[in-house]
Amino acid sequence: MALAYCSVCVSVVRTLPPGFSSGLLQTPRPVSCGVHCRELHAGEERPTPSPTAAPERRPFSRVTPEDMAFFSKIIPGRTITDPDILEASNVDWLKSVRGFSEVLLRPQTTEEVSQILGYCNSRNLAVSPQGGNTGLVGGSVPVYDEIILSTALMNNVLNFDSVSGILSCQAGCVLENLSLYLEDSDYIMPLDLGAKGSCHIGGNVATNAGGLRLLRYGSLRGTVLGLEVVLADGRVLDCLATLRKDNTGYDLKQLFIGSEGTLGVITAVTILCPRKPKAVNVAFLGCESFEQLLQTFQLCRGMLGEILSAFEFLDRECMRLLNTHLKLANPITDCPFYIVIETSGSNPTHDEEKLHQFLEEAMTSSQVIDGTVATEEAKIKALWSLRERVTEALTHDGFTYKYDISLPVERIYQLVTDMREHLGDRAKSVVGYGHVGDGNLHLNITSPTKDPDLLASIEPFVYEWTARFQGSISAEHGLGLKKRNYIYYSKASLAVALMGNIKIMLDPKGILNPYKTLPDDLQ
Amino acid sequence: MALAYCSVCVSVVRTLPPGFSSGLLQTPRPVSCGVHCRELHAGEERPTPSPTAAPERRPFSRVTPEDMAFFSKIIPGRTITDPDILEASNVDWLKSVRGFSEVLLRPQTTEEVSQILGYCNSRNLAVSPQGGNTGLVGGSVPVYDEIILSTALMNNVLNFDSVSGILSCQAGCVLENLSLYLEDSDYIMPLDLGAKGSCHIGGNVATNAGGLRLLRYGSLRGTVLGLEVVLADGRVLDCLATLRKDNTGYDLKQLFIGSEGTLGVITAVTILCPRKPKAVNVAFLGCESFEQLLQTFQLCRGMLGEILSAFEFLDRECMRLLNTHLKLANPITDCPFYIVIETSGSNPTHDEEKLHQFLEEAMTSSQVIDGTVATEEAKIKALWSLRERVTEALTHDGFTYKYDISLPVERIYQLVTDMREHLGDRAKSVVGYGHVGDGNLHLNITSPTKDPDLLASIEPFVYEWTARFQGSISAEHGLGLKKRNYIYYSKASLAVALMGNIKIMLDPKGILNPYKTLPDDLQ
Repeated sequence: MALAYCSVCVSVVRTLPPGFSSGLLQTPRPVSCGVHCRELHAGEERPTPSPTAAPERRPFSRVTPEDMAFFSKIIPGRTITDPDILEASNVDWLKSVRGFSEVLLRPQTTEEVSQILGYCNSRNLAVSPQGGNTGLVGGSVPVYDEIILSTALMNNVLNFDSVSGILSCQAGCVLENLSLYLEDSDYIMPLDLGAKGSCHIGGNVATNAGGLRLLRYGSLRGTVLGLEVVLADGRVLDCLATLRKDNTGYDLKQLFIGSEGTLGVITAVTILCPRKPKAVNVAFLGCESFEQLLQTFQLCRGMLGEILSAFEFLDRECMRLLNTHLKLANPITDCPFYIVIETSGSNPTHDEEKLHQFLEEAMTSSQVIDGTVATEEAKIKALWSLRERVTEALTHDGFTYKYDISLPVERIYQLVTDMREHLGDRAKSVVGYGHVGDGNLHLNITSPTKDPDLLASIEPFVYEWTARFQGSISAEHGLGLKKRNYIYYSKASLAVALMGNIKIMLDPKGILNPYKTLPDDLQ
Repeated sequence: MALAYCSVCVSVVRTLPPGFSSGLLQTPRPVSCGVHCRELHAGEERPTPSPTAAPERRPFSRVTPEDMAFFSKIIPGRTITDPDILEASNVDWLKSVRGFSEVLLRPQTTEEVSQILGYCNSRNLAVSPQGGNTGLVGGSVPVYDEIILSTALMNNVLNFDSVSGILSCQAGCVLENLSLYLEDSDYIMPLDLGAKGSCHIGGNVATNAGGLRLLRYGSLRGTVLGLEVVLADGRVLDCLATLRKDNTGYDLKQLFIGSEGTLGVITAVTILCPRKPKAVNVAFLGCESFEQLLQTFQLCRGMLGEILSAFEFLDRECMRLLNTHLKLANPITDCPFYIVIETSGSNPTHDEEKLHQFLEEAMTSSQVIDGTVATEEAKIKALWSLRERVTEALTHDGFTYKYDISLPVERIYQLVTDMREHLGDRAKSVVGYGHVGDGNLHLNITSPTKDPDLLASIEPFVYEWTARFQGSISAEHGLGLKKRNYIYYSKASLAVALMGNIKIMLDPKGILNPYKTLPDDLQ
């Protein structure tokens, strides 16, 4: 007996007849709890569709045995239908959304991706491109029966030029593997994030991932020098330049950075890598108030200047979750706010001197009430894990509602305070952490189980609050399935309409990652 | 008696009847030496069109007295028809191309730009947007009788947030004025270039200007946070975000960065400004060979690391021109190659220590044979002028053929050497200078007067050479009128075709900056 889940809330909708999972090629039927698969619920009373729920399945073709034969011919042995393997690709990392694909394709080359997409486009088969499946907005898994096109086997480094620091690689390289690869040449990747052990560089680029090094090395829009992209119709767009500067015409690669696989499938990336710093130091500090934390940030930017590579924060609630769920100990006095400061530089003596001068000033002026500093790798890792593992701690706390908000930096914590007040005791935990240096707050709210009433209290409150201060309702996570309909809180109608035009221009049949990024009224 | 010039070669084509200049509203007639205005030369024998020559005038409407009345009504007193004033807007800075516009519009607000474009689009009137008119590829002046839309009076700072360093301003602000404006708040602009005294920030963004600080602060694709753009049909696209991170949908502003006014008119910009460094040092060094110069660059990146803010070079020929035409003295021994290194940092003592350690190492290892260092502003300016004034010195040397090439850094000077050998004594001077740190060579070739035979020897040789090493035929200058047809040397056909689709999507009548950026076979 197989179970069928709602592709939005992952609750069991119905039990399926034996053989359903493996027999879907003959009887494809996505299921839902009533919102996004209306044909299954004809005549039933349905709740008002929530903006996060998937829209109805669009009239794409269904995969036939002939299609399977085609795929098996071009990527023999890499056309997966085993339901156990498919399970991991159908469900997102947060286990918050679930698709019902029965076909997972694992091409190894751009040519294979090109053949697959050319075929799918001609057959009107929808495709869900997938990297490491570490996205947080339901963008990386299918919604219905879209074919999953995984970049997992496209994991070769193509070239590294140790003079210029320019790396060329296939889209499926895991970020951490690239970091390890570069270590020998004394370079680092210009981005780093908690999911580095699983996420693919192609997915990072497709979602314009931010992460922990953005403050120092800037966004992928500056560091990605070139892309190779397979368009919806299978044509290969070669913009795989390895140049720092190129002003010959419009910069097409920018269209694909951050488009979440809806405009093309990124198959290769060239990226400018910074030199590995000769010295890295991390300070973990505690502040009495968010205002003091901001004063510390200003002081820090002035005194650490060019060696400042990260300025992150977490609140007391985050620390409580780290203690409770992951048994991580707080290395300093209990405080309302904690800061992780990282410096990276070319001269260890100078860097330590700058850091100590800054700490002395911060302590003397009482901006910081306690702190500890690490220069050895093990301790650096331990301190960083307090920031990096907050996401993990949250998953143990209950069902998590995640918000990733950009705001003018002086506003970012006010949203957490206001949300706490607004929700009262309806939420289990309301925590704030994130990238102060980038004005990027991660607001997370947990409850023992999924709680539609709580959700109704959070949204659209959180989006309206953000829009009031001209913030972005998705600083780095993207829109995916879950946030697509909230785009109007951060983008003007004309801008969204133009996005729709771009989508039609590049993917006229809409086969690429449908139901994602763009709002339903455009799709 | 008025003269008419060819809009490509600026040679006198014919004398015009008295009153021609002011009477053009009634008798508009662009003139040419035979390539781009065929109706005037029907029956004449024409030379084969050169790829740099303008194509025939497209069937846009001609400005009528009714149009003038409309413009005068919406921007009273700012609709210019005085031929003396128009002259400066019709001819580019290099005096290499000339348009024949008789109308210069000077809006002050976005609303005015919107009304103008909405009207021009409905009337099918072509428009040439113009900032400081400092472009080098004929992109900033009309080709025929396009209406010139100047941003000169849109020069207000809208806001500056001294906590985040985010500046919002109108497009017509002069770059140097913005730098001065920021000085009080201890910030600097993230870009700097020789034309700073005239160029507009809107033009900088529209052409994705590179300049002298790119090595340190990255490209405008990373530092520009938001744009306001008026589309061809007059609609105002508000993407004027002031956030460092925003992943809500496609990043539309990137389309307009570097599109040279062909997709929309940028009316306002928000840009992330770096803190003003507390210490700036400049070293001017001499090397025996380009190989030594590259070794010095590698050493420098390692030892100066995060404080390195520029690594520029000029060759002996450049120095000769500076001496001859501008009477600038060489501050060190005569050498085949000169380097300008700039450091910017937060701690003067640390920076000087790093710089001296580096210089000691560079001298000891004989990579550098002579050098001088400046820490005071006057001497810093003097050293920088040796690099910044090369362009000016070239204009005194004769007619200049300019090339702005991106290449793998180890190749950049080989092109100069090969070109010298290829041209022999046909050229007056063949000089190389540019941004080593960005792999960006400025190759310039002079001759006593415009010399079509010399040009035929240079092109397509220079482009074929560049394409052979996967370089860009325009690293930072853009394509404009002069280089539009060479785009295929650096971009794949599919990429160029997609650019054409984007142009049609955003400017279906093609009224914005026609004959520029995109090749003739697409326009």
